[in-house]
Amino acid sequence: MPEPQLSFANDYSCGATPEILERLARTNDVQYPGYGSDDVCASAKERIRRACGAPGADVWFLVGGTQTNQTVIDAITPQYAGVVAAASGHVNVHEAGAIEATGHKVLTLPHHDGRIDAAELDSYCATFYADANYEHMVFPGSVYVSQATEYGTLYTRAELEAIADVAHRHGMPLFVDGARLGYALTAQGNDLTLEDLARIADVFTIGGTKVGALFGEAVVFTNHGGYSRTPKHFLTLVKRHGALLAKGWLLGVQFDTLFDDGLYLRIAAHANRAADRIRAALTERGYELTFDAPTNQVFVTLDDATRARLESQVAMGYMEPTADGRTVMRFCTSWSTTDEQVERLIALL
Amino acid sequence: MPEPQLSFANDYSCGATPEILERLARTNDVQYPGYGSDDVCASAKERIRRACGAPGADVWFLVGGTQTNQTVIDAITPQYAGVVAAASGHVNVHEAGAIEATGHKVLTLPHHDGRIDAAELDSYCATFYADANYEHMVFPGSVYVSQATEYGTLYTRAELEAIADVAHRHGMPLFVDGARLGYALTAQGNDLTLEDLARIADVFTIGGTKVGALFGEAVVFTNHGGYSRTPKHFLTLVKRHGALLAKGWLLGVQFDTLFDDGLYLRIAAHANRAADRIRAALTERGYELTFDAPTNQVFVTLDDATRARLESQVAMGYMEPTADGRTVMRFCTSWSTTDEQVERLIALL
Amino acid sequence: MPEPQLSFANDYSCGATPEILERLARTNDVQYPGYGSDDVCASAKERIRRACGAPGADVWFLVGGTQTNQTVIDAITPQYAGVVAAASGHVNVHEAGAIEATGHKVLTLPHHDGRIDAAELDSYCATFYADANYEHMVFPGSVYVSQATEYGTLYTRAELEAIADVAHRHGMPLFVDGARLGYALTAQGNDLTLEDLARIADVFTIGGTKVGALFGEAVVFTNHGGYSRTPKHFLTLVKRHGALLAKGWLLGVQFDTLFDDGLYLRIAAHANRAADRIRAALTERGYELTFDAPTNQVFVTLDDATRARLESQVAMGYMEPTADGRTVMRFCTSWSTTDEQVERLIALL
Amino acid sequence: MPEPQLSFANDYSCGATPEILERLARTNDVQYPGYGSDDVCASAKERIRRACGAPGADVWFLVGGTQTNQTVIDAITPQYAGVVAAASGHVNVHEAGAIEATGHKVLTLPHHDGRIDAAELDSYCATFYADANYEHMVFPGSVYVSQATEYGTLYTRAELEAIADVAHRHGMPLFVDGARLGYALTAQGNDLTLEDLARIADVFTIGGTKVGALFGEAVVFTNHGGYSRTPKHFLTLVKRHGALLAKGWLLGVQFDTLFDDGLYLRIAAHANRAADRIRAALTERGYELTFDAPTNQVFVTLDDATRARLESQVAMGYMEPTADGRTVMRFCTSWSTTDEQVERLIALL
Repeated sequence: MPEPQLSFANDYSCGATPEILERLARTNDVQYPGYGSDDVCASAKERIRRACGAPGADVWFLVGGTQTNQTVIDAITPQYAGVVAAASGHVNVHEAGAIEATGHKVLTLPHHDGRIDAAELDSYCATFYADANYEHMVFPGSVYVSQATEYGTLYTRAELEAIADVAHRHGMPLFVDGARLGYALTAQGNDLTLEDLARIADVFTIGGTKVGALFGEAVVFTNHGGYSRTPKHFLTLVKRHGALLAKGWLLGVQFDTLFDDGLYLRIAAHANRAADRIRAALTERGYELTFDAPTNQVFVTLDDATRARLESQVAMGYMEPTADGRTVMRFCTSWSTTDEQVERLIALL
Repeated sequence: MPEPQLSFANDYSCGATPEILERLARTNDVQYPGYGSDDVCASAKERIRRACGAPGADVWFLVGGTQTNQTVIDAITPQYAGVVAAASGHVNVHEAGAIEATGHKVLTLPHHDGRIDAAELDSYCATFYADANYEHMVFPGSVYVSQATEYGTLYTRAELEAIADVAHRHGMPLFVDGARLGYALTAQGNDLTLEDLARIADVFTIGGTKVGALFGEAVVFTNHGGYSRTPKHFLTLVKRHGALLAKGWLLGVQFDTLFDDGLYLRIAAHANRAADRIRAALTERGYELTFDAPTNQVFVTLDDATRARLESQVAMGYMEPTADGRTVMRFCTSWSTTDEQVERLIALL
Repeated sequence: MPEPQLSFANDYSCGATPEILERLARTNDVQYPGYGSDDVCASAKERIRRACGAPGADVWFLVGGTQTNQTVIDAITPQYAGVVAAASGHVNVHEAGAIEATGHKVLTLPHHDGRIDAAELDSYCATFYADANYEHMVFPGSVYVSQATEYGTLYTRAELEAIADVAHRHGMPLFVDGARLGYALTAQGNDLTLEDLARIADVFTIGGTKVGALFGEAVVFTNHGGYSRTPKHFLTLVKRHGALLAKGWLLGVQFDTLFDDGLYLRIAAHANRAADRIRAALTERGYELTFDAPTNQVFVTLDDATRARLESQVAMGYMEPTADGRTVMRFCTSWSTTDEQVERLIALL
Repeated sequence: MPEPQLSFANDYSCGATPEILERLARTNDVQYPGYGSDDVCASAKERIRRACGAPGADVWFLVGGTQTNQTVIDAITPQYAGVVAAASGHVNVHEAGAIEATGHKVLTLPHHDGRIDAAELDSYCATFYADANYEHMVFPGSVYVSQATEYGTLYTRAELEAIADVAHRHGMPLFVDGARLGYALTAQGNDLTLEDLARIADVFTIGGTKVGALFGEAVVFTNHGGYSRTPKHFLTLVKRHGALLAKGWLLGVQFDTLFDDGLYLRIAAHANRAADRIRAALTERGYELTFDAPTNQVFVTLDDATRARLESQVAMGYMEPTADGRTVMRFCTSWSTTDEQVERLIALL
C-alpha cells in the first residue's frame, strides 16, 4: 500500500535535520565509551546548560517521550502519590498506562485547550488536604504540564510561574514535558524563554524526536534547590526502566548539534512559519480551527465529507471526535516541511 | 580526559556498519508513518522470517537490550511466576532490576561458563513441584538463556533442544536473548543455525546494537504453537514499557540492511575472526583464557600488574574479580575492528 | 479524648455478630491446617455456593476490601488494560492507589448517584476502539461496580445485566464489589438476588467486614464460562499480594456462621430497617437526603451550623463538600445498631 | 477428611491465647473509630514502646507476615535498590514473589543455619561498589534478617550489632523480621533483649500470628535517627498495599493484651519449653536434629521410612529435601501446645 504522497500526519515522519546526519557519518568510526559517559554527551550537556542559563543544571539523554515521562515521573513522585496532569495530558491519554505501570496514578484536572489552571490546581490540593480521609487517597505528588501542550497551545510565563508556585506550596515538583519545546519557544506571542523555563520548572525535557533529531529527549534537572534536584542514582533508575542507550553518544551527537549555534530554535521556527501559513489559509477558506494554537500543530474540526475529501489527498493526524459528530484532525509541520509541500496542501484546501 | 587510542572495551563503541549509515542518509527525507507501521519495517520483518525459515513468525523491533528483555519477559511470564536464568545471566546481574521492576523474580540456576544445564533445570522444577508449599513460592514461569552467553560461550543445538524440552514439559516458554546472536551463529564449532533457533525457541531476539547497528533488537515470536505465540496486544505492552520508537522505520532500515544478502552474518564473522586472532596470540603468550569461548568476546584472567600495564595502553572491559585476587577482563571485537587494531593489540600483549 | 457516646460514623465500628464470637471461642483450641485448607473453610464455601445457587462457583476468603479489590482486579485485568469504574468508585477514590500499585489504570465513567450506565460504558468502549490510536492507550480490560454503591444506591437486575452484556461484548469480565452486598440484597425495592448476581457477574465479593464479621471478604468466581473463571494459581496471587491469612479458618468460621440459616441477610435487614427509620425521621424534619438510597448508609447534605450542632452529639461520617458550600455527611447502621441508639439519634435531629 | 489428631505442623494452627479471646468478647459492642485510630491501639503502642525502652519508637499494626514484609521493605528500600537477605529468608523463599511484586530484587547471601554473616554482608557490598559497572546493577538498599530465623536459630546481640554496623556503613537500614520474636527472646542461651533490638534495628516486627494472637504483626520504627525513621505517610503506604485493617482496634486489643504483664513472653517461653522437651527426646532416641536451634521449631532430618511412620500419626511441617535423599521435617510448638500433646509425641518417637 503506497503512502499518500503528501503527509502532514505528524512531526516525526522524516529522519533528522541534515547537520545531524552528517555528524553521525563523520563520527561513525570513533570509539566512544558507552552509556553516555563520552565527551560528546558532556559537550551537549554543557551547551544545554548554557542555553538554559543554568550552570548547575543536570542534563540526561533518553530515547523516547513516553519512556522519559515514565522514568522522570516515577523518580520524582513519592510512592504514596500520583502525578497531577491535564485530562488531555499525554501521560493520561497516550502512553498506554506507562505511568500506572510504575505504580503511580495520574490525577487529572480539567484542561483548557490543553492547559491546566493554577487556581484549579490549588483548589484540587486544598480540597484534598481538607478531606478527613485524605490519607486513604492518592496524594498529589508531582505536577506534569506540556509546553507546547498536546493541543499546540502555550502557557505564558506568568501562568507557568503560578503553577510552579502552587505546586511548591503543596510540596510538589513541577515537571514540564517539552517534547515540542522548540515549537513553543519560537511561536508567535510566546513570552517564555528557555532561561525562564529553567528557572521555573524543577525538571523539564527538551524534545529531539519531534524537533529535528532521529530520536532523543534531553532531561534537565534544574537543581536550583527545593524540589529541584537530580534523583539519587538516576542512571540506575534510567537503566531499570530499560531506557539507557548503549551507544549513548548518539544522543550526545544529536543534541550537541541541535544546540550548536541555535539550530534547535531555527528548525522549530521554520516549522512554525509553515504552520502559520496553513492556519492563515484555513481561516481564509472558512475552516474552523479547533484551538487557538500558535505552534507546529494545526488543529481543524472537519465534517465527514471534508475529512474524506482531504484524506484522499493528504495524510493528516486523527485526534478525537467532537460532540456534534465531526472530527478534530491535525496538520503537523516539522524541520522537513518544504514550501512546496505547504503550497500543495493549501491548494487542496 | 582523552580516551585511550586503542579500545577493545566493548562491542558497542562505534556507530553502524557503513551500509546502514548510507541507507539512513538515503531515506532521510522520506515520510514514513510512525511506530513501525511502515513498509521498511515490513520488508525487514519479511527478510528475518525468511532467514529464519519461519514464515509464521512475528517480528518486532525494539531499541535496547535491557528494554527488550524487560518487555518480553514481562509479557510471557505469568503473574505468579518468575523467569529462570543462569546466575550469570544479563537479566540477573546487569539490568539494574528491570525484571523485578515488572514484578517478576529472577530464579537462578548455577551457570557453567554462562550456560544453564537442562538436567539442572529439570531438577529445579521437579523439586519445586514436589515441595508441599510450592503454591507459596514463585513458580518457574519462563526460561531465559543467552546465545552467545554473557561469557561468550555457546549452547549446542542439542543442549538448547534439551532445555526447550524441559521448559515445555514444565509449562514454560523458552526465551533466547540473542544480543550477540550473530557472533554465535558464525563462531567456530557452532552447530546451531538461525533456522534451528526459530524451530526450538518460543521467542528470541536478534541483536543489532552489538552487531553492526546503531541500536535495535529484533524480537521474534516463533509462533509454532504451544508456548510460542505473540502476546496479545504486544504493541501496547511495548508502549507501556516506554519502548515504542516514534520513528520506527529507523529500526526497519537497520534490520532490512543487516538481513540483505547476509550482511548480519558477515559482520559477525569478521569480528569473530579478529577475536580468534587475539585468542591465539594470548594463548601463545601464556595468558590464561578464562572461558573456552569462540565468539567476539575474549575473556582473560589477569594479575594486577599485567592488568595495569595493559590498561595503560588499551581499553578493556571489566568483568569480575576472581577468588584468587586476579581480575577477569574482556577484549571485544565488532564490525569496526580493523586488522591494524588487532595487530597493535597483539603487539602490546 | 473520649469518643462521642453515640456513633453512626460507619458500619465497621463494632466487633462481630455474637454468633461469630461464640463460634470463635468454641473452636479456639482446635488445630486447623493453615491458609484456608481446613474443613471449616470448605463448609463455608459450600454454604456460599448453595446460597448462590452456583454449584460450580469457586470461593476464596480474603481479609479486607481494598486488598480484595487489588488482588482480584490485578488477576482479571490484562496487563495492557485498566479497570473501568465509576468516578465515585472505591477503587478510584479511597484505596490510596492500590489498583495503580499493581500497574493498572482506573478508567472512569461518570457516576449517577454512584452507578455507571450500561449505555455510557458501551459508548466509552466504542469510542475507544474507534480511535485510530487505540493501541497507544489503556484498553478497557475489566469492569468494576459496587452493589450497594459507595452512595448506598443499587443497581437493578436489568441494569446489571445490561452492564454485563456490554462488558462481555467488549471482552471484559464484570466484577461486582459486594463490600455491602447484604444491605443491597435486603433493601426495600431491591430486585437482585444473590442467585441473580452469581448468574450475571463473573466475579463478585460478599463483604463480611461491614456486615457482621470481624473482618473478611468472600470472593466468588462464578465459573459459568467465558470471562467467568478462577485465575490460574489464584492462591499464589493472593499470597503475592500479602493477602493470604495464616489462620485461614478464622475466615471460614465467620462465613460459615454468616451463611448458616440466613444470618447474613438477617443482620443486613436489621441494619436497613434502622436506616429506614433514620431516613424517615430526617425527611419528616426537612433534612435533605443527598441520595435516594435504600441501604444502611444514610447520606444527608448539611449546612455548617447543623453539621456542627449534630457532630457535637453524634459521630457521623464525612463524605465530601458540595458545590454550594455544604457538606455531605453519612449515618451508617450495622448489625450492632440498637433501637435505643436510633431513638437517641432521632431525638437529636 | 479428618485431620490427624495430633499436630505439630506449625505454630499457627490454633486460635488465640484465651486472654485475647476474652477481651475481644468484652469489647465486642464498643464502638471504635476505624483504621487503628482508636484508644486501644494507642495503649498497645505505648505498652510496646515501654517494653522496648524506646519512647520515641513509632508502632504500627498490620495483619500478616508477608504483607508486613512487603509493605515495610517497599517503604524503606530505595527504588534503585534491593533488599539483602539470607538465601533461606522468608522474603526470598516463601512469599510468592511479594517483594518483587513491589519492584525490588531480593539480593541473597549464603545462610549459616538461617543466619547471614556480617563479614559476608560487608564483602558483598564492598565487591558491589568496587565493580566498575555497579550503577548497572541492583544496589544493596536494605538488610533483612529474621530473629528467630526460618531455621529456628538466633543471632547473638554481637552478631546483630555487627550486621547493623555494616548495613549502616553501606547506607542501608536494618529490618528484623520478628514473626517469631517471642520465641527468640525467651530461648535458652539468647542474649538479645527487646531493648537491645530496639536499639540496634532500624525497624523490626513483633509477630502476633505465631505467638498467641489470632493474627497481627506489630511494626516498630525505632526512630533513633539515621536510617531509623518512619517512612513518610506510612498509613497511606499501608493502605496502598491493601494492608490497613478497617477494624484496626482488633489488632490493638490483641497487642495490648499480649504486652500486658509480660503475657507475650510467657506464651513464648511455654512453647520453647515444650520444644526443648521434644528436642531432648529426639536426641535421646538418636534422631538427627537438623539445626542447633533453641526456639519453638524443632527440625529433624528423617529418612523416608521414619517420615512415613511418623506422619501416619502426627502432623509435621515439611521443610526441604536433603542432598542425601532424606527430608527435613519440623515439629512446631505454640501457646496451645499441652504437656499431654508433648507426651503423646514423645511416645510416638
